[in-house]
Amino acid sequence: MFASSPAVHPVEAPPPTDPVEQPRGVRMKDLPGMPGTLGGLGLRLAQFVFAGIALSVMASTDDFPSVTSFCFLVAAAILQCMWCFSLAILDIYALLVKRCLRNRWAVCLFSVGDGITAALTFSAACASSGITVLIDNDLDICSENHCASFESATAMAFLSWFALSPSFLLNFWSMASG
Amino acid sequence: MFASSPAVHPVEAPPPTDPVEQPRGVRMKDLPGMPGTLGGLGLRLAQFVFAGIALSVMASTDDFPSVTSFCFLVAAAILQCMWCFSLAILDIYALLVKRCLRNRWAVCLFSVGDGITAALTFSAACASSGITVLIDNDLDICSENHCASFESATAMAFLSWFALSPSFLLNFWSMASG
Repeated sequence: MFASSPAVHPVEAPPPTDPVEQPRGVRMKDLPGMPGTLGGLGLRLAQFVFAGIALSVMASTDDFPSVTSFCFLVAAAILQCMWCFSLAILDIYALLVKRCLRNRWAVCLFSVGDGITAALTFSAACASSGITVLIDNDLDICSENHCASFESATAMAFLSWFALSPSFLLNFWSMASG
Repeated sequence: MFASSPAVHPVEAPPPTDPVEQPRGVRMKDLPGMPGTLGGLGLRLAQFVFAGIALSVMASTDDFPSVTSFCFLVAAAILQCMWCFSLAILDIYALLVKRCLRNRWAVCLFSVGDGITAALTFSAACASSGITVLIDNDLDICSENHCASFESATAMAFLSWFALSPSFLLNFWSMASG
């Protein structure tokens, strides 16, 4: 930075690597929960299951289309199901053929996708919980509505977001540090 | 990279550092928007102003305490105002005495604080927008409610979150890469 003249310094020799086994760009630390690991697959499956339960519980009520936030929750849950299912398939493939998924562009794509899905699911869950609390606590009209279904769908959407955020943070972390 | 034995490599000579001027841990790149820069101060002021407008508009309506989500929005806006005001003061101090704020622990603290505040503001804004859309579009009872105030307070909370997320992402990025 503020160099006045170049100099030579002894540096550690890197280990003798085989270029076939360690392709360029795959130098990130292997943390559990990252794509292509068993922890990552578990997180994806948890996200998929929670989003699926939220979707089916909300869609099983007959009056959800009358409230925009509940429709938004259904749409977000469908998107999250699709995203998590694709990435779970990718994780299973990576585990089966023992292939590393952590190259720069894949991590970037996963990170952006996770960020968008997480933001959508979280906003849908928050909007639904706002409505649910209004119906249940403020107006006290639970007898005319499917409060239990709305509340469990919202809780499942929150759990799905909760399982998605470690994936997002780990991917963002390895994008920044890689 | 593929050397088999220790070797010498020419590198740039490190700058003659004064340990008082460049303490350990201050090696992160200076991106606009990070704490201690003019961009960072601008972001903090924008967050503070938007959260302040959201708070005052929502608090100016007389019936906001009857809806839990609107109370949550007021609480989140108060918290965000306090957080952004403190960090704006810190930024002004850092700019005045030309001190670098990016050591490891400060960035970690800023990142966690930004993350918590951003999540709270975003969830409050989403819950309020769920209620607002319900009142305005689904039930169509805007004539009995302060729809305009509710909607503008929600929009301001979203804008405040929008100004907060670059701060969070930049801090998280420099925490991961530092």
